[in-house]
Amino acid sequence: MATKYRIAVFVGSLRKGSYTRMVAKALIALAPETLELQIVEIGQLPHYNQDLEANPPAEWVAFRNEVRGFDGVLFATPEYNRSMPGVLKNAIDVGSRPKETSVWNEKPGAVISVSPGAIGGFGANNHLRQSLVFINVPTMQMPEAYVGGAAKLFNEQGELIVDSTRDFLKKFMEAYAVWVEKILRK
Amino acid sequence: MATKYRIAVFVGSLRKGSYTRMVAKALIALAPETLELQIVEIGQLPHYNQDLEANPPAEWVAFRNEVRGFDGVLFATPEYNRSMPGVLKNAIDVGSRPKETSVWNEKPGAVISVSPGAIGGFGANNHLRQSLVFINVPTMQMPEAYVGGAAKLFNEQGELIVDSTRDFLKKFMEAYAVWVEKILRK
Amino acid sequence: MATKYRIAVFVGSLRKGSYTRMVAKALIALAPETLELQIVEIGQLPHYNQDLEANPPAEWVAFRNEVRGFDGVLFATPEYNRSMPGVLKNAIDVGSRPKETSVWNEKPGAVISVSPGAIGGFGANNHLRQSLVFINVPTMQMPEAYVGGAAKLFNEQGELIVDSTRDFLKKFMEAYAVWVEKILRK
Amino acid sequence: MATKYRIAVFVGSLRKGSYTRMVAKALIALAPETLELQIVEIGQLPHYNQDLEANPPAEWVAFRNEVRGFDGVLFATPEYNRSMPGVLKNAIDVGSRPKETSVWNEKPGAVISVSPGAIGGFGANNHLRQSLVFINVPTMQMPEAYVGGAAKLFNEQGELIVDSTRDFLKKFMEAYAVWVEKILRK
Repeated sequence: MATKYRIAVFVGSLRKGSYTRMVAKALIALAPETLELQIVEIGQLPHYNQDLEANPPAEWVAFRNEVRGFDGVLFATPEYNRSMPGVLKNAIDVGSRPKETSVWNEKPGAVISVSPGAIGGFGANNHLRQSLVFINVPTMQMPEAYVGGAAKLFNEQGELIVDSTRDFLKKFMEAYAVWVEKILRK
Repeated sequence: MATKYRIAVFVGSLRKGSYTRMVAKALIALAPETLELQIVEIGQLPHYNQDLEANPPAEWVAFRNEVRGFDGVLFATPEYNRSMPGVLKNAIDVGSRPKETSVWNEKPGAVISVSPGAIGGFGANNHLRQSLVFINVPTMQMPEAYVGGAAKLFNEQGELIVDSTRDFLKKFMEAYAVWVEKILRK
Repeated sequence: MATKYRIAVFVGSLRKGSYTRMVAKALIALAPETLELQIVEIGQLPHYNQDLEANPPAEWVAFRNEVRGFDGVLFATPEYNRSMPGVLKNAIDVGSRPKETSVWNEKPGAVISVSPGAIGGFGANNHLRQSLVFINVPTMQMPEAYVGGAAKLFNEQGELIVDSTRDFLKKFMEAYAVWVEKILRK
Repeated sequence: MATKYRIAVFVGSLRKGSYTRMVAKALIALAPETLELQIVEIGQLPHYNQDLEANPPAEWVAFRNEVRGFDGVLFATPEYNRSMPGVLKNAIDVGSRPKETSVWNEKPGAVISVSPGAIGGFGANNHLRQSLVFINVPTMQMPEAYVGGAAKLFNEQGELIVDSTRDFLKKFMEAYAVWVEKILRK
């Protein structure tokens, strides 16, 4: 039986009806058998402040411990003002400290950006990738995933209704499963 | 008498002994007479969440109202993981919404990044600039300001002790004053 | 009578049927009266090599002299591999050297990117903007201009046939004319 | 006996006394036994122009054929105007076309940037990385390599004279050898 890898999924938008969250849920449903995905919440994390490290907030500690238990990390992000949302960047920052015990190091990663507009969150996607270099997340390059026109992809129940998008997301997850295996196999 | 322009200063680091805050204070002290600078705090702002706009948190409302009263905006940022800190990006996001009443629009801006290392926060500085395009902050191009080796620039009282840095920061503020006047004059 | 500003237009694609060149020509036709635009060719410039500065190629000298005669600079670029084409970056490099006599300094600028795909050259547009900081081209922030789906915008004669695009390009040029005046007026 | 991987090295500066070329040569000398590195020249490549693909310049054909013979790709770049030099971007563009026969696809890569200044070519390094996503070069994340103060690293014969830099470059190459093996092993 193939090894099963556990993948943490981070959603950069906090609103309930978030398209990005819908895409994340579609990815979870479409993932191949070798991956087990789970959303890790980030909205509860206090802003990073190094002064708090002496006695870190319980939310930081719980988040760091939770992420440590995963094998890989998948970031689903909207674009706010041509970059990542602050809340997602904050989660990256909290997880990266203290540097010696960063939760990100060497976990195979992927990025998908989601937007109601045509550009599909290109700015957020690529800014996020620049941070992934420094926190040493080996990141899948292709297929890139810029999901545009997100408002037309789902029905009122938040279910994906466009076949070509479903096919794309499925292929994206299959490619990511190959990437995870390549990075993690002994 | 020359018009006096009021400039909001945003500090991307929350820790008390922050070098970035020391640089911000030095800039305030070194600014020419035509500028009046004041730090606007950002650490208290809840993460942006569009669902809250129906009844926005008091901190968002106060922040938006405060920033609206300024003529220009100056961003002093450390670099976290090769980008802006989440807390600073969140302040930009909170101020930018709802889009019709964004607090940033057309306010002349400048960016300075600060780091204990050699690279001087280049990644944070330029990611921030990409967001400033979208929120329509006409931003001073030169002099760029990448303040590296920050730990050696201040004494224990947080006072700037390196003359060449003082000269540079003074010229930076003089250039910014010219920029503010160019953008805002009728 | 209003001052007339002369604007150099750089086209990042060399092929004859280039959509980017079509967009550039449309911009020239749609510009308000206060701007006089002219394409400056870049394909003939040898790759930058500092060793050649002792006796610079005639094409470099002619290009530098030509650009010096303009008041502003407008960059129209396709996206190659998520960044600017090499040929356009080379033109920026050639014009920027020697640093003391850079042809770019303080000329008000704008960027428009063009692509047959949906994303509209976002990567090229924003990489170019990062270079414009260093060469000190005060660059218009908004409206951003990411022209996607370019293959459907023109007829076989290369004429713009989509009204909404014409309106957008016209507003873009009107905003740029305001920007040029703001930066250059005494 | 371990498999030996052949790595193409691209140098973004054309001048003879280039620090970037010196760094590239040092990397070649310091590489572990499993890697065999060789510089592939790029200065002779005509600017990319899609119209020429019907009958491509001999230099393009020779370059594409040469790069196809390598297993991995290492980019050593100076920074020009906060981005890659045009000549290096052009080599990437030439190698990437026609898309179906791109010479880059799936070749494990690394990036090192070199500068006489403190910032070490951060802008060039990270713009290059954005292109490597699209051309599907799985790129080593850490160690990042921003080689600053390059003028002090070499003697008049172009030999590396600083031990800490030699140690760093050696570790960089050892990490890259591990990366190449991870990506390419069956």
